[in-house]
Amino acid sequence: MPISDSAAEENETGQTLTATVVGGSGFAGGELLRLLAGHPNFDLTSATSREYAGKSVGSVHPNLRGTDLRFSDPEDLDSVDVLFSATPHGVSMAQIDEFSDSADTVVDLSADFRLNTEAQYDEWYDGHDAPEYLETAVYALPELHRDELPGADLIAGGGCNATATILGLYPLFEGDLLSGGEQIVADVKVGSSEGGASASKASSHAERSGVVRPYAPTGHRHEAEIEQELGTGVAFSAHAVDMVRGASATCHVFPDQPVSTGDLWGAFREAYDDEPFVRMTAGGSGVYRYPEPKAVAGTNYAEVGFEVDAENRRVVVFSAIDNLVKGTAGQAVHAVNVALGFEETAGLDFQGLHPVGSP
Amino acid sequence: MPISDSAAEENETGQTLTATVVGGSGFAGGELLRLLAGHPNFDLTSATSREYAGKSVGSVHPNLRGTDLRFSDPEDLDSVDVLFSATPHGVSMAQIDEFSDSADTVVDLSADFRLNTEAQYDEWYDGHDAPEYLETAVYALPELHRDELPGADLIAGGGCNATATILGLYPLFEGDLLSGGEQIVADVKVGSSEGGASASKASSHAERSGVVRPYAPTGHRHEAEIEQELGTGVAFSAHAVDMVRGASATCHVFPDQPVSTGDLWGAFREAYDDEPFVRMTAGGSGVYRYPEPKAVAGTNYAEVGFEVDAENRRVVVFSAIDNLVKGTAGQAVHAVNVALGFEETAGLDFQGLHPVGSP
Amino acid sequence: MPISDSAAEENETGQTLTATVVGGSGFAGGELLRLLAGHPNFDLTSATSREYAGKSVGSVHPNLRGTDLRFSDPEDLDSVDVLFSATPHGVSMAQIDEFSDSADTVVDLSADFRLNTEAQYDEWYDGHDAPEYLETAVYALPELHRDELPGADLIAGGGCNATATILGLYPLFEGDLLSGGEQIVADVKVGSSEGGASASKASSHAERSGVVRPYAPTGHRHEAEIEQELGTGVAFSAHAVDMVRGASATCHVFPDQPVSTGDLWGAFREAYDDEPFVRMTAGGSGVYRYPEPKAVAGTNYAEVGFEVDAENRRVVVFSAIDNLVKGTAGQAVHAVNVALGFEETAGLDFQGLHPVGSP
Amino acid sequence: MPISDSAAEENETGQTLTATVVGGSGFAGGELLRLLAGHPNFDLTSATSREYAGKSVGSVHPNLRGTDLRFSDPEDLDSVDVLFSATPHGVSMAQIDEFSDSADTVVDLSADFRLNTEAQYDEWYDGHDAPEYLETAVYALPELHRDELPGADLIAGGGCNATATILGLYPLFEGDLLSGGEQIVADVKVGSSEGGASASKASSHAERSGVVRPYAPTGHRHEAEIEQELGTGVAFSAHAVDMVRGASATCHVFPDQPVSTGDLWGAFREAYDDEPFVRMTAGGSGVYRYPEPKAVAGTNYAEVGFEVDAENRRVVVFSAIDNLVKGTAGQAVHAVNVALGFEETAGLDFQGLHPVGSP
Repeated sequence: MPISDSAAEENETGQTLTATVVGGSGFAGGELLRLLAGHPNFDLTSATSREYAGKSVGSVHPNLRGTDLRFSDPEDLDSVDVLFSATPHGVSMAQIDEFSDSADTVVDLSADFRLNTEAQYDEWYDGHDAPEYLETAVYALPELHRDELPGADLIAGGGCNATATILGLYPLFEGDLLSGGEQIVADVKVGSSEGGASASKASSHAERSGVVRPYAPTGHRHEAEIEQELGTGVAFSAHAVDMVRGASATCHVFPDQPVSTGDLWGAFREAYDDEPFVRMTAGGSGVYRYPEPKAVAGTNYAEVGFEVDAENRRVVVFSAIDNLVKGTAGQAVHAVNVALGFEETAGLDFQGLHPVGSP
Repeated sequence: MPISDSAAEENETGQTLTATVVGGSGFAGGELLRLLAGHPNFDLTSATSREYAGKSVGSVHPNLRGTDLRFSDPEDLDSVDVLFSATPHGVSMAQIDEFSDSADTVVDLSADFRLNTEAQYDEWYDGHDAPEYLETAVYALPELHRDELPGADLIAGGGCNATATILGLYPLFEGDLLSGGEQIVADVKVGSSEGGASASKASSHAERSGVVRPYAPTGHRHEAEIEQELGTGVAFSAHAVDMVRGASATCHVFPDQPVSTGDLWGAFREAYDDEPFVRMTAGGSGVYRYPEPKAVAGTNYAEVGFEVDAENRRVVVFSAIDNLVKGTAGQAVHAVNVALGFEETAGLDFQGLHPVGSP
Repeated sequence: MPISDSAAEENETGQTLTATVVGGSGFAGGELLRLLAGHPNFDLTSATSREYAGKSVGSVHPNLRGTDLRFSDPEDLDSVDVLFSATPHGVSMAQIDEFSDSADTVVDLSADFRLNTEAQYDEWYDGHDAPEYLETAVYALPELHRDELPGADLIAGGGCNATATILGLYPLFEGDLLSGGEQIVADVKVGSSEGGASASKASSHAERSGVVRPYAPTGHRHEAEIEQELGTGVAFSAHAVDMVRGASATCHVFPDQPVSTGDLWGAFREAYDDEPFVRMTAGGSGVYRYPEPKAVAGTNYAEVGFEVDAENRRVVVFSAIDNLVKGTAGQAVHAVNVALGFEETAGLDFQGLHPVGSP
Repeated sequence: MPISDSAAEENETGQTLTATVVGGSGFAGGELLRLLAGHPNFDLTSATSREYAGKSVGSVHPNLRGTDLRFSDPEDLDSVDVLFSATPHGVSMAQIDEFSDSADTVVDLSADFRLNTEAQYDEWYDGHDAPEYLETAVYALPELHRDELPGADLIAGGGCNATATILGLYPLFEGDLLSGGEQIVADVKVGSSEGGASASKASSHAERSGVVRPYAPTGHRHEAEIEQELGTGVAFSAHAVDMVRGASATCHVFPDQPVSTGDLWGAFREAYDDEPFVRMTAGGSGVYRYPEPKAVAGTNYAEVGFEVDAENRRVVVFSAIDNLVKGTAGQAVHAVNVALGFEETAGLDFQGLHPVGSP
């Protein structure tokens, strides 16, 4: 049963709901544990991990060493108000009935419910096991779906690369600076945490350090989401670079009509002036003039900015997020805050660090 | 006039005091701004910077872009309850009269008031301009000086390398596992933020990346503090390694009598079981078995641990901190919380990240 | 007086020429010293540095500690066969008469003689002091100018970012897969050594570590070279990423006609099969499937590759070089080898390392 | 049959011998392939790999993409002049009879023949399968065993951490500045390539980036070698730091008698003045004053240096090597050069890079 709007109202008064994290030993799961443990409106009752059942969450996530919680077996699902799933692709769609029975609200961080139609899953993935849920699932990004979130039963977290790309380009479509027929290139640079917590030769420190490595030059599945959310396709390429956290999208756009810096400021302000987690930066002085992942590492902020290239009739749009926070776990918590009527920024108040290395 | 104990009691009820940061554009100053902006008991009224007067703090510290505050001129000191100084060595001792007139409590993060006697400044520095303040200044580390902090007029932040070393070795002295005559080596590895925000060839990215560089193999000034706080000298060497934040001390100790793992656990628990910002970790399973800077980056935690080397009649003690938080700004806020009767952990609740790169 | 073709012929028999490096304390100058010291046909007689005159080259470049050479004053130019200049932009154009008097062949690594016309310098730089030299200067890249190099008096090294971009796109133009009217985006990622040996806040380790930072999103001067060499403009953007050496260009191209993988292999093989310093890699198995800077660090190799994105009617072209070798000093030595009739690969036989970190 | 001294003499005239690498897909094996492919006196006929049999060596080691060689099955051993084995610990001792039948000279890079007696293997490892070979095996380090190498049938490469530590301390024992009863601490910092090419969670980029991690605080097996070679025990601790290549040893020594800087220079010059691969650096000006791994990355050089700490009656000794070259493959090639009478530096002429990141 969904949280009703009146329940949402009650929550503003300080109600505390119970929450569980399914798949808590991965990187996204660990971030959920961190954020929920510090959230004023959640009582984190359990976290599951097949591999680490019985061990303390701090033995896997050293930043949580002060927490008493131990991983439980994923077979023993708690009945809770909100169930967060941070399992690999394919698990949630297989278990969604069980998840829905266990919780009023299900928040899935995998790709399993992001796309709206079974046809998209047939094209980009290996089909879908529970297509009947796709219609009601709400894409988590509050900047685009704030009005649909209250009362949602199933919230589907966006992909991290897609999130960075969408947030950069969204104001250009909303502000009618692009119509959808133009060439758009999204050249994305990502950190190693995107690959998850499992080990492989390519992700070993000796092989991955210092790289600029094209890892998904074409055909990245996040193209499907981007097209869904923006209404137009984007030519997308991803590169692994030497950071752990972070996704940075540089979008090269060729509008049919000349676009000025003022036009862009107008469109971005219109889109984001009231957004608590979007910061605009485009030029200025000092070391930090454009969006960059370091400046938002560990936070739920997205930085967006742009530059006009009149010579080439191009607009370059930059966006940067922490892939594990704004790109995954923080986006989910933000969406749930909106869905349940909590303070929008609850549990998401970390401001980030300066200086910071490869975050 | 010092904050009285009764004032401290009042503060627990939620009183808000005004604060200023002198020297807010450096790395330590920026951390102070971050921590004070999020502190429930402080109203940050100003931050000074000679170089950036008039500019927004966010233009220097990108994580603070959401803050309205602009740097003011250091000539125009606010009259506040608490003045934090994050100026280079030598500035505070020259201005301490002025600072004391402007604020009830002065917290200095430089080396200017850490040592107890003028003789120490003559030996390790270039003497002292205001030796009359040395007697009343309290060394900030609450783990050693909790009882002296309430009511202190002048709090002197410890050095970051000294803090890491002292926290590692302190339990061995308190627990009588060392008497003071033994050989002790402190081999310390530090991040680039220790060098501060100014530019030099040695600190450029191209020269500093990937280093293991002995930068203070002998004669490091922090030896003076360590000897003062522990009562015995330590043979100290510092190495620059490739991280931005962090100080990690490995102390090699040769006790006269055999020491067991149980003896060490006993001594460390006795020293730190009630400490809110010290975590013990010594062995176990998983990736993170001993203290390391990554696990505490951005936080006010210190991790401490040890290993017995029976073969060599040695005890190896590890400690790790974030040099800018537990080693500087966080230590200062913690000390002020104790001094003024605030909740000890107020403003210091960030738990750190996992995974995290070179923090 | 230029080296005549007959002189070039003689050189093949093993002649040794004298060489000097003007501006030997910078990063490019240091690479020249390394390459020339190990070159079988050069006798490195001197290296100048205003700042370090009198000091050993090994005190600045620690890899050259085994070399006896000391920096001399730039006022005292040696008379040599070949003068290499690695001075900042603007110095060579002011001193080119003097350089030409001192040496038969002048090789300039700055931007001062790369462009063919004074008009280009008026548009992209601050004009030119010695435009009469522009007509005879030869752009150093042998892959494009092998036939013009023998006998050249003045060789102008290409820009590192331009070199990476040009080598990636060149086969598409030569193979008539592009006509010049198409949209081309060059999204380039570069290491910190591009910024040179001088210190600045933006290049400090604490600020530069772990970045993905747009540093020249539009209007980069290398656009001028790329247009000159390829005959068409390219929308260029550069990002600083966390490596010291390396430039990686990802070019997104939208051909008017469909292009197949076979078409691309044909064009690339046609362009580069006989090139000693270009390696092609496009797909396959294992960790390293596309060009990446790590695989060529320290070497004079360029790696090039591509991927067809049929969905978006796009071709993605990748290229990777070491900015200080193939992008600067190695390119210059390679060009001189061709110009003087030496073995083309002389002095350039280092094969690179595996594994290697952030090179 | 061993290479006789007269054979060694012949080799100086430029004889070429055949060589194979058993276990060529790992990091040490790849370095052997690189060094032997560029060695003027070796014809590399084969390289084995169980996992990659049939694949090109360039598909595993991208720096060797220009090489035609493909991995062969380890069951099919070539009959060669020199067999290099770069297999994991335990393999060589099981196959040493077969290796010896296939080659005149066997060079083993594992730990299998480094220690002189079966008793050491019983204490530090799990015993030994072929103890009859231990007596004749020669420890590869030419700085200590140059006279024993000519004519050796079996050469045993030293451990990388042991090599760094031994080279730092050796002059103090040779110069009688230490007698053997003093406290010696070796605090070693190592890169990720020491862990080898296989994948694990602890070695993943996300977990290993930016670390200072005690990974062998006590009981490291290299203590056995150090004691064997120096004649005295050393209290050894190893830390993982953020580099790929490199081992840096800081040894803290407390001599019974005062030792001056002049004494140290004397002892180090006596030990190393004629050594082609040892560079001394201790103080001076500039960025690079003491040994550091960056300055020797990719090379066979060891840097050694020291500082006197009169206050603490301590000498601090620094040494730095590339663990895969001087610490493994380069040491082996150097030893073979000496053993077979080749030019000592043959195949080992790479001078390293400046600047270089995390090598």
